[in-house]
Amino acid sequence: MTGFIPSGSTRLFSVVGDPIDQVRSPSVLTRLLVDQGEEAVVVPMHVAAADLPTLFQALHTVRNIGGILVTVPHKQEAFRLCATATDRAAFVEAANVVRRLDDGWHGDNTDGLGYLDGIERQGFAVAGRKCLLIGCGGAGAAIALEIMRRGASLLAIHDIDRERRDAVIAKLDRYYRGRLVVGSADPAGYDLVANATPLGMRPEDPLPIDVSKLESRQFVACVVTKPEVPPLIEEARRRGCRTMTGAGMFDAQAATLVDFLLTRPSEREVGLKRD
Amino acid sequence: MTGFIPSGSTRLFSVVGDPIDQVRSPSVLTRLLVDQGEEAVVVPMHVAAADLPTLFQALHTVRNIGGILVTVPHKQEAFRLCATATDRAAFVEAANVVRRLDDGWHGDNTDGLGYLDGIERQGFAVAGRKCLLIGCGGAGAAIALEIMRRGASLLAIHDIDRERRDAVIAKLDRYYRGRLVVGSADPAGYDLVANATPLGMRPEDPLPIDVSKLESRQFVACVVTKPEVPPLIEEARRRGCRTMTGAGMFDAQAATLVDFLLTRPSEREVGLKRD
Repeated sequence: MTGFIPSGSTRLFSVVGDPIDQVRSPSVLTRLLVDQGEEAVVVPMHVAAADLPTLFQALHTVRNIGGILVTVPHKQEAFRLCATATDRAAFVEAANVVRRLDDGWHGDNTDGLGYLDGIERQGFAVAGRKCLLIGCGGAGAAIALEIMRRGASLLAIHDIDRERRDAVIAKLDRYYRGRLVVGSADPAGYDLVANATPLGMRPEDPLPIDVSKLESRQFVACVVTKPEVPPLIEEARRRGCRTMTGAGMFDAQAATLVDFLLTRPSEREVGLKRD
Repeated sequence: MTGFIPSGSTRLFSVVGDPIDQVRSPSVLTRLLVDQGEEAVVVPMHVAAADLPTLFQALHTVRNIGGILVTVPHKQEAFRLCATATDRAAFVEAANVVRRLDDGWHGDNTDGLGYLDGIERQGFAVAGRKCLLIGCGGAGAAIALEIMRRGASLLAIHDIDRERRDAVIAKLDRYYRGRLVVGSADPAGYDLVANATPLGMRPEDPLPIDVSKLESRQFVACVVTKPEVPPLIEEARRRGCRTMTGAGMFDAQAATLVDFLLTRPSEREVGLKRD
């Protein structure tokens, strides 16, 4: 495709974040929309947390705005600003996308879906496997839910915030009894090692796990999008592991996000207990 | 040029109006920005008058928004929402563009400049000529000021709102004494006949002047952008007059608008009394 020039009747979507430079949705989703024949564009909006409620209120009055994508650190607040939400967004109390309805915003959270679809695209399926998740904040909780929905035999969760970790384990244990445990930074024995912390974005960050224990049979995944290949993924590849990066996670959910924003039926837009 | 795909670091500009479909700024100004090597896009925002103050407040918190273009019916309200403004915007108490400064919006009004530049591009200069202006609302007052700044020998103003007409004549008369008079719908005897009313946008609108009195030596200009050739311009062309349409007016000010939005010095961004 050759690019896009907006007109007076262009439908508008935005992505809010702080920082904003790293987001992939303006390029990836605009391309997808244009390739699908939509006259629509996704633009970045760099906004601080304190200003999000007013911005959401004001953007809802703009009649040609169809929805807003949400990235760090706004996902929890965006969920609170929603009138309604999907089960999976309600489960993690965070939204990475909201759609404009007449009476307010309707939130969803496709982070878990994107993360697991991205891993599947690399040939790894979690059904019946043992998984270690590092970090269970907004994205991490969504990933934990999706790992369980896809039939993992065991999920160990490690988070330096023990209260948060125990809360996510308790919530998931109600649906997937006996398959949730407390994890650590030691990846030995797991089939999937999944990082959902921002560790790796800054050069001075420590590694989220003890990489010396990684084996080549393990799959290692990471949410970080900048740098494109964070240290964890570099170390995992050096040890022969298959990997997925934050870019893979985002690209895997792009079509789902477009369907959600355009209110198209999507087989991926499902309730909490699909399986 | 081939089009544009936004990224996370794209600079954002918007145009607010109600309706919005007819606006030319998203296409014309985005093209101009991209052709000049800027990573920036102009997107439409369809918003009702009651929602404009909240939208202006919220968009000011978005750090990558550089400015907002303003069209009907928001120009007067946009001016009221400005922290500072250029002389020519203050004169007409209406802004067709605002730029983001740290402490608020800075307004300008380039409607008069665009209208007169558009006429000059068709080979007609107002210096020393007799002009008739129909309508002196937001755009009309800006056009009246610019006609006088460029040295018209006489400006007759016709407006069905006599109070508004007399107020504009009185304000201009302080700077251009003795050259302002009350006009009528009769174009006989003028060199330039300038429509600044929206008459012609709807099929049922009456013509703004008595076209049976037009002569081929007269120049006829019109602010209406949709239809592209409104009935007044059609009638004028049939009588052999040279003409300018609303599209010509907008295209003529496009470069000035981009300079203003990007805070570039522009020879057209001048005070009230250039000549």
